[in-house]
Amino acid sequence: MPESNRVWRLRKRPVGAIGDDVLSFAPEPIPEPAVGQFLFRLNYLSLDPTNRIWMSDMDQYMPPVALGDAMRGVVCGTVVKSNHADFAPGDVVSGLGVWADYQIGAPGMLNKLGPFGNVSVADAFGLFAVVGPTAYFGLLDLGVPKAGETVVVSAAAGAVGSIVGQIAKIKGCRAVGLAGSAAKCQWLVNDLGFDAAINYKTEDVASALKRACPKGVDIYFDNVGGDILDACLKQMNLQGRIPTCGLISQYNAKDIVPGPINYPMILMQRLKVQGFIVLDYANRYPEAIAALAGWLQQGKLKFRMDMYEGLENAVITLRKLYTGENTGKLMIHVA
Amino acid sequence: MPESNRVWRLRKRPVGAIGDDVLSFAPEPIPEPAVGQFLFRLNYLSLDPTNRIWMSDMDQYMPPVALGDAMRGVVCGTVVKSNHADFAPGDVVSGLGVWADYQIGAPGMLNKLGPFGNVSVADAFGLFAVVGPTAYFGLLDLGVPKAGETVVVSAAAGAVGSIVGQIAKIKGCRAVGLAGSAAKCQWLVNDLGFDAAINYKTEDVASALKRACPKGVDIYFDNVGGDILDACLKQMNLQGRIPTCGLISQYNAKDIVPGPINYPMILMQRLKVQGFIVLDYANRYPEAIAALAGWLQQGKLKFRMDMYEGLENAVITLRKLYTGENTGKLMIHVA
Repeated sequence: MPESNRVWRLRKRPVGAIGDDVLSFAPEPIPEPAVGQFLFRLNYLSLDPTNRIWMSDMDQYMPPVALGDAMRGVVCGTVVKSNHADFAPGDVVSGLGVWADYQIGAPGMLNKLGPFGNVSVADAFGLFAVVGPTAYFGLLDLGVPKAGETVVVSAAAGAVGSIVGQIAKIKGCRAVGLAGSAAKCQWLVNDLGFDAAINYKTEDVASALKRACPKGVDIYFDNVGGDILDACLKQMNLQGRIPTCGLISQYNAKDIVPGPINYPMILMQRLKVQGFIVLDYANRYPEAIAALAGWLQQGKLKFRMDMYEGLENAVITLRKLYTGENTGKLMIHVA
Repeated sequence: MPESNRVWRLRKRPVGAIGDDVLSFAPEPIPEPAVGQFLFRLNYLSLDPTNRIWMSDMDQYMPPVALGDAMRGVVCGTVVKSNHADFAPGDVVSGLGVWADYQIGAPGMLNKLGPFGNVSVADAFGLFAVVGPTAYFGLLDLGVPKAGETVVVSAAAGAVGSIVGQIAKIKGCRAVGLAGSAAKCQWLVNDLGFDAAINYKTEDVASALKRACPKGVDIYFDNVGGDILDACLKQMNLQGRIPTCGLISQYNAKDIVPGPINYPMILMQRLKVQGFIVLDYANRYPEAIAALAGWLQQGKLKFRMDMYEGLENAVITLRKLYTGENTGKLMIHVA
């Protein structure tokens, strides 16, 4: 076991994009687990849009990270020392932790991960810890897709979006994705089996949506908010559903972000707009994981990792999420 | 039977408030019912916020009234001539009709009304035809109130709002209403049993909501949209519900109306915002009417009519809705 640890700590609230002075990265002692705790070493750090929310003091779904605290993250690691009866050295765990090489496993925040047959730890963590259940419950529980319906998803080449579109196809729906480059759009259609993809950076989204969704939109799985939400609101069919998973277009905003102008469509088309956080479904994760693992083994679901090396690169890598540079699940391999 | 009829027809789409030149009112022949039709005489004309939507060509939930057509309305009348086996002269009918003394009953658009014991035709029409079922299904089906929760309703001194608050009380909730005058607020609290009322014209709505809802807001029944929606979004509890019944604050708008700035609260608080139109519940009206009639007879529900005389006064009376001059159900007595 090494003698030193490295910890990212939140130093100030970001204004706009995450600046270099928002977090510090410095050596610290390795903490000692008390009775009922365990110590684990970080193997993979998941980078997620919500990281930017936790850094800020905007209204949010759990307390923001306090200034001076270690940065919160979705983590995967290996237990190295345990004073907890349920965890032993060598156990692979995943859940909510911090951006640090070594850290204490907080009771209830981490669970053992797998093993899942021939699925690697990285894939199991990337797909099963947050992304897969988010896509699964958001689309199926809130969206309630019926075969033949049209499902549109934004940030479709992102981790959650790419899974949403594939589950839509599995359920017999037409899947249409919005993404920010021609390469991403080709990947969605050619590799993942989306019926159509729209490059929102080069196409007129409103008219492209009309072409791609000749029968209108029954479910819009919203990862981004903003102008794309407004364009989708305009195309929604009667009794359409908008599971609201993220609003990444506005997390970096410095000024007040306008609300959707087409909000009245909620009334006129009797839409259901529903926000959700996957943590609310924690007790139903096994259901989602079983389904996702089955589709993966049957070759019906593809999962793409966008993996970078080194905890020291966490911030520069995280920024890719907000500029749309990643394709698939953004992650850091630490050890 | 008289020889003449009077008909309001839509001449142009309103821009802003409903101008004098938007509709015409002129004598016309009394129509003759064909086989399978009946002719009825208008007794009461319901004036509803949605009338302004139907006049416009904004995105809406059914086709707008075509230019030149008789203005659509929720009507109550008495059959005077029938070529339809199910309707006989003297039958009282209510449903969708037009602003005219005499008109043809369109199959499927009108149903027989009552009789309902000692409830007058006017009250039965006012409460059971649209208002009561709207409040009933919007609050109970979409809001799903639990005893002890806090229900906020806007346009609370209006027809639907006043019923929503009373049903909330019947269900054991805290009921808080927003209305536009001290007299209306007093009526809500002193006569209808609301726990609190907020005068949105004189009070700071955000801080008044905090005072009136110390445990936050579980259900916001939205009749108005706009700034009040934004203020309520900010106070919503986790898993809160926003049945969206109307957006009257923006029906008269000449320019594009901004969307709600606090839209991200839908995500952060995992809210469910759901639009509805009571017509979608047509097959469940009997359930609502039975419950409403029961509460009325038990003295648990009060219903207030704001009745005016004369079909010729339809437009000047309708305008009261958008300036907030009415209290209770706005209606015209015709014959």
